[in-house]
Amino acid sequence: MSQVLFGIDIGGNSIKFGLFDPDGGLLEKWQIPTDRSDSGAYIIQSAGLSVRAKCEERGIDSRGILGIGVGVPGTARPDGHVIRCVNLGWTEARNAAGEMSLLTGCENVKVGNDANLAALGEQFRGAARGADDVLMLTLGTGIGGGVISGGRLVTGAAFSAGEVGHIHVNDEEALRCNCGATGCLEQYCTVDGFVRVASRLLETFSAESLLRERAKSGAGFTVRDVFDLAKEGDQIADLAVTVGCGYLGRAAATCANILNPEVIVIGGGIAAAGEIILRKMKPDFEKYAFPDCRGARLVLGELGNDAGVIGAARLVM
Amino acid sequence: MSQVLFGIDIGGNSIKFGLFDPDGGLLEKWQIPTDRSDSGAYIIQSAGLSVRAKCEERGIDSRGILGIGVGVPGTARPDGHVIRCVNLGWTEARNAAGEMSLLTGCENVKVGNDANLAALGEQFRGAARGADDVLMLTLGTGIGGGVISGGRLVTGAAFSAGEVGHIHVNDEEALRCNCGATGCLEQYCTVDGFVRVASRLLETFSAESLLRERAKSGAGFTVRDVFDLAKEGDQIADLAVTVGCGYLGRAAATCANILNPEVIVIGGGIAAAGEIILRKMKPDFEKYAFPDCRGARLVLGELGNDAGVIGAARLVM
Repeated sequence: MSQVLFGIDIGGNSIKFGLFDPDGGLLEKWQIPTDRSDSGAYIIQSAGLSVRAKCEERGIDSRGILGIGVGVPGTARPDGHVIRCVNLGWTEARNAAGEMSLLTGCENVKVGNDANLAALGEQFRGAARGADDVLMLTLGTGIGGGVISGGRLVTGAAFSAGEVGHIHVNDEEALRCNCGATGCLEQYCTVDGFVRVASRLLETFSAESLLRERAKSGAGFTVRDVFDLAKEGDQIADLAVTVGCGYLGRAAATCANILNPEVIVIGGGIAAAGEIILRKMKPDFEKYAFPDCRGARLVLGELGNDAGVIGAARLVM
Repeated sequence: MSQVLFGIDIGGNSIKFGLFDPDGGLLEKWQIPTDRSDSGAYIIQSAGLSVRAKCEERGIDSRGILGIGVGVPGTARPDGHVIRCVNLGWTEARNAAGEMSLLTGCENVKVGNDANLAALGEQFRGAARGADDVLMLTLGTGIGGGVISGGRLVTGAAFSAGEVGHIHVNDEEALRCNCGATGCLEQYCTVDGFVRVASRLLETFSAESLLRERAKSGAGFTVRDVFDLAKEGDQIADLAVTVGCGYLGRAAATCANILNPEVIVIGGGIAAAGEIILRKMKPDFEKYAFPDCRGARLVLGELGNDAGVIGAARLVM
C-alpha cells in the first residue's frame, strides 16, 4: 500500500481524523468521541488506536505512515509536548508526540495548537491559499487565533501566540473574562458572548424582538437564533450582531496594524452564520486599521470543520 | 584593506552611518544632515557619496564592501524599493537599493523600515540579545514598531507590519490622529502626546504644578520636562506619565497576546527618560496581557541612536 499522512484534531467533544496522500490530498475522514474520563488520560491512546485500526483496514504498515500531525486545544511545544490543555482535562504536561509515536510506530509526529493548525489548513487548501501572511480567528465557545507570517506559523516564545480572544476591546465592561481581565473580545464574540450581548440589549431597549419572547417564555435563545433573527430584520438581534462583530472588526484591525496580513480568515462554528459577520465587522475594521494595513481581505473559512485536520497534516508534510 | 559592512539610518534630520567588520562589530560611526531640498531628491546620493568618501579615507575598494543596509522612516520592499516615505519628502516610489548600488559599486544593498531595523539591532547586539521573539516600540515624534518572530523580521503583506502607534487605546478621544482615526497610541505616547496629556490634566485638575507655571508664563514645556518633573514628584507631571505609559502598557499587552514575545524593548528618544517608563507601563501591561503571554520581559533599548545602523548592518550580514 502507498504512503500516507494522518491529520488529527483533538477537541473537547470529538477527535477528528483525516487520512491524506503525501501531497496533502484528503482521502478519507472520520471522528470518534473524546474520552474525557480520568482527566483525559486515554485521549492520545484512543486516537492512536484509531489510526492503527485505519492502517489495518487499509493495509498500511507503520513504515507507510509518513507523518502524523495532531492539533490540541492548548499549548504545544515544537518537541511534541503539550504543556497546557485544560480543555481536555490535562493537568500536567504530556509528551503527546512521543505517546503517538509509540502507539503507531511513526517517528514523524508533530503537535500544534488547534487554531494555529486551522490557519495552516486554510492557507494550504482553503480561503487563504497562496497567501504568506495570514491571520485566522476561530469563533466558537472561545476564540482561537492563528498567525502565519512570511509563510511560517508564529508560535511565540512560550508557544502562546494568537491569543486574540483576550485583546481588550471595551473599557466599560464590568464582568470579568475567564482570564481575569475585563472587556476581552472573548466576552462578546463567542457562543455565550453573543447571547450575553443580546440579553443586555433586551434590558436596555424596549423594541419588540422575538428574542425577548423567547427569553420571557423561558425557552431562551442561542447564538444561532441571534444570527438567524438578525438576518430576518429583528432589531435587537441585528444590534447584537452589530455590537459583537464590531468588536471583532476592531480586534482584527489591531492585529492588522501589528501584522499587516494579506488575508484575515474568520472560522470556527459561528462562521457558519456567513457573510453577515464580514459585513458587520467591516466598518470597525476600516475605522481602526491604519491605512497601509487596511488592504487585508476579510473572508470566511472555506474548510469548516476540516481546517484542523488539514492543517495538522500540513504540519508534517 | 579588509572587508566591511555599512549600516545607514536615514532620518528626517540626520543620516547616521556605521562602518562594521564582517561580523557586525562597529568600527566607526558618523552622521550628516539630511538634505531635504527638492522633495528629498538628493538624500540617497548624499548618503552614497558619504560611503564613498569613507571608503577612500580607509582605502576600501568597492569589492571590499560586503553589504550596505539602509533604514528609512517609511515602507520598504525586499527588492530595495521604498514605496512610501513621506517623512523624507518622497512622493513617489524609489529604487533606493539600486541607486545606492550604482553610487557605491556594492551589489548587496538592502533597505528596511527604521523601527524594524532598530528591533533587529537590539536583537543582534542590544537588550534583546539571544531572543528569537522580540517586539520593539520606538517612542519619538511618532511611534515605530518592529516585530521579530522565530528569529525573522515580520514585515507583512504590504511591508507595513509594526504599526503599533495606531493601536486603538482610548474610546473617549475626540481629537483625530494623523491617520484619521481617534484614540491611537500615537496620540499619547510621543513627544507631542505627553505634552498634550499633561496640558489636558492641567485643565482638569487644579493641583499645583511647575508645568502649570511654565504654561502660564508662556514658556511652555516639553516631554522632557514632563518626565523630569514626574521624577521630582510633580503631581500633574506624574499623572501625565502614568496616563501615557498606561496606554503604552495596554498596547504592549495587546501585542503580547498576539505575538507572545520573549522581550519587549522600549526605544526611541523618549526611552532616555529611563526606568520610569517601564514602571509606569507595567500595571496596565499585566492587567491586559493574557496570563500565558505575561512573561515577556519589559526592557529599555541598550543601543540608543545606534540601534538603527546596527540593525541595518545586520540586515546585510
